[in-house]
Amino acid sequence: MLGRKLARRLAHDGALGPAPISQLSLVDAVPSDPLSAVLDISEPGAAAEALATRPDVIFHLVAVVSGEAEADLDKGYRVNLDGTRLLLDAVREVGGGYRPRVVFSSSIAVFGPPFPEAIEDDRATTPRTSYGTQKAIGELLLADYSRRGLLDGIAIRLPTICVRPGPPNRAASGFFSNIVREPLNGREAVLPVSEDVRHWFASPRSAVDFLVRAATLDASALDDRRPLNMPGLSATVAEQIAALRKAGGEEAVRLIRHEPDPEIARIVEGWPRNFDTRRAHELGFRAETSFDEIIRVYLEDDMER
Amino acid sequence: MLGRKLARRLAHDGALGPAPISQLSLVDAVPSDPLSAVLDISEPGAAAEALATRPDVIFHLVAVVSGEAEADLDKGYRVNLDGTRLLLDAVREVGGGYRPRVVFSSSIAVFGPPFPEAIEDDRATTPRTSYGTQKAIGELLLADYSRRGLLDGIAIRLPTICVRPGPPNRAASGFFSNIVREPLNGREAVLPVSEDVRHWFASPRSAVDFLVRAATLDASALDDRRPLNMPGLSATVAEQIAALRKAGGEEAVRLIRHEPDPEIARIVEGWPRNFDTRRAHELGFRAETSFDEIIRVYLEDDMER
Repeated sequence: MLGRKLARRLAHDGALGPAPISQLSLVDAVPSDPLSAVLDISEPGAAAEALATRPDVIFHLVAVVSGEAEADLDKGYRVNLDGTRLLLDAVREVGGGYRPRVVFSSSIAVFGPPFPEAIEDDRATTPRTSYGTQKAIGELLLADYSRRGLLDGIAIRLPTICVRPGPPNRAASGFFSNIVREPLNGREAVLPVSEDVRHWFASPRSAVDFLVRAATLDASALDDRRPLNMPGLSATVAEQIAALRKAGGEEAVRLIRHEPDPEIARIVEGWPRNFDTRRAHELGFRAETSFDEIIRVYLEDDMER
Repeated sequence: MLGRKLARRLAHDGALGPAPISQLSLVDAVPSDPLSAVLDISEPGAAAEALATRPDVIFHLVAVVSGEAEADLDKGYRVNLDGTRLLLDAVREVGGGYRPRVVFSSSIAVFGPPFPEAIEDDRATTPRTSYGTQKAIGELLLADYSRRGLLDGIAIRLPTICVRPGPPNRAASGFFSNIVREPLNGREAVLPVSEDVRHWFASPRSAVDFLVRAATLDASALDDRRPLNMPGLSATVAEQIAALRKAGGEEAVRLIRHEPDPEIARIVEGWPRNFDTRRAHELGFRAETSFDEIIRVYLEDDMER
């Protein structure tokens, strides 16, 4: 989803920062898009093939999502850890001074309880999912390879993307989008947690902005600390529902079915709720400041006709 | 070194906490000791072989040290990352409810600058060496496998062990021991950094205590945060030298040759100097409180005859 939106944005802009884009290659492990090459970078040799054109910037968004990485330990580690490592090693093996910017999409799932009032930039990563663990490991690899001058990496820890368009995926966080998107399109959605659950959000449009900014950032400003907590909006499910009411009326809100799921509630317990994203702010990253705004972005960019 | 000392302690005690020891197996990648099996756990199948006796407790001390992991990227990642992962996977593959305590010796090298006055328990891991990166990744794997109930891991972040007996190894931190051990034995030692360098120390005896305590600790007290910063002594090189003067006189101090090495100074810049180890303290871990005490332990345990 994010990859497609990013590609569309880059194709529209025709440039990345000051640099015109001469070539844009999409690579995916599954045939998700008619324009993307099907290549599983967790297979030996595949990453080298993906780098054949020596891109100046690599966006590494690949991931087995949280629900699936939790259900299938081997697959999660193979794709999210080995795949990332194979990609970084393939960059290293190019040699000859090749040192591309690698933008790695990490996640706030690298954090776990007990949570402070707001998570600061120097907070320890204590993931409570295999997905979060694999993202935290990817960050460490990226930072080490960057420090060694083998590539120029930036890891951005994305908030939960909301409102996510299209059909639900296997992410345990899916309901945060479902309870907005489905009612706005006249369909029922299940809310598996209580309304006082607080979480950290940004729109898909903001996420694409983050990726573009990370691609063009002056890395010397990072002082070798390569992971960055991205800005977002801290909101409760109740605040989500209030914004839905404003956008879609009471009939939209009535389409939310409360169906408590202790397993999802347990997973969500382990997710961060609020951040103090000072470093990202200083570097110019910005996100939405109200859930009304997040819904407006959905209506403008992704609302089904 | 630590493995041998630990084995001697366990053989002497005949028990680990309340449990008598029925069997003790030593495994090393190189023939370091006549009693240890030579097995490289980074080779496929080797970890399974090491687990043939189904130990209740596994001490995982294996490491390519910092200097070597920095010089040889592939070897460091193969032994320190792949070796650890193969060991944890071998435990998982035993199945049938096998869930041993795995004590993983991590390091304060998981931390990097900018440093606060004292590093607290929830500080982010931002290693400035490949060795520190590999240790941080090992901790994440251990925590995830523990959370999933596949094993019962504890990672202890050891201070720099001082005074390290025997000949120098390839650790960049070697000089902290050399400048004490060599003069006490009438030999010259090189000091490659300035005397105001501050660092975090514990004796080999304390490190063995940490390992034993970690092996017998009630893991429910960890609240799923599996890495623990170990207590230590924050001391400057000048304080080390003052303690050496008390123990060995001015003639010992005169054996220290000041030979500034900018490369080692640069590496040491990236190392932590002081900690607030509240969690470990609450769990009963204790270290030396003066460098005099650290030298006394050396004289009692390891002084060459």
